[in-house]
Amino acid sequence: MPKSYYFVVVGCGRLGSKVAGYLSEKGHSVVVMDKNEEAFERLPPEFTGFTVYGDATEMESLKEAKVNMADMVLAFTANDNTNFMVAQIALRIFGVPRVVAYVHEPENIELFKEFGIEVVCPTLLTFETMKGIFRFLEE
Amino acid sequence: MPKSYYFVVVGCGRLGSKVAGYLSEKGHSVVVMDKNEEAFERLPPEFTGFTVYGDATEMESLKEAKVNMADMVLAFTANDNTNFMVAQIALRIFGVPRVVAYVHEPENIELFKEFGIEVVCPTLLTFETMKGIFRFLEE
Repeated sequence: MPKSYYFVVVGCGRLGSKVAGYLSEKGHSVVVMDKNEEAFERLPPEFTGFTVYGDATEMESLKEAKVNMADMVLAFTANDNTNFMVAQIALRIFGVPRVVAYVHEPENIELFKEFGIEVVCPTLLTFETMKGIFRFLEE
Repeated sequence: MPKSYYFVVVGCGRLGSKVAGYLSEKGHSVVVMDKNEEAFERLPPEFTGFTVYGDATEMESLKEAKVNMADMVLAFTANDNTNFMVAQIALRIFGVPRVVAYVHEPENIELFKEFGIEVVCPTLLTFETMKGIFRFLEE
């Protein structure tokens, strides 16, 4: 049987909800945080994890989500600055071993990496896909 | 020498500006449209194409951008509904042979495809990348 991990997903938007549902389905323990309570409606009905309604840049909310126990924190809000702050608190204060952040502005990627944060950038991923489409056009 | 094409990019956000700069650098003719004039500041200084300041769901703006001459239209605004509308007008009214749209909500993808629109979905692309990261964790 594969190992089970504890994930804290910050931001229950399109990506956060999808990832939380996926991890829960895979048998992992998942807590999803959002400061907008309606965002939890995006979670699939099969989601077996917990939700924490609160601001992930506030220590109380992070403690409630037991971030100190997390194997991985995913900072997936729509705001790069929030993601940076959440990721830094998770890494430096709570000692979370791995933190991945959604970085919307490609120019911010290097900064995040310098601070030990792993990044996924939807803009760059889409740009790479588009380059594939343009190459096809040139053939 | 590779062929040169005429592209109309609707939406000069993070992705639109990056793609427009790339296509211009590759020697293609590019027109970028946005209803927010400041958005054009995102374009790289080397951008040699044109900008059209206007609402791409209005026929006059699309005519100004000579959408009828376009080899490809890229509907890259932040709003799926706008992208759908722009893509449909480009395909059905202006007879543009290929239209690619940014689709933020994965649930909308099938609808776009049924209407002949090619799609790129940042949410799904990022989700796939995340699944790669999780697999690595399980090893």
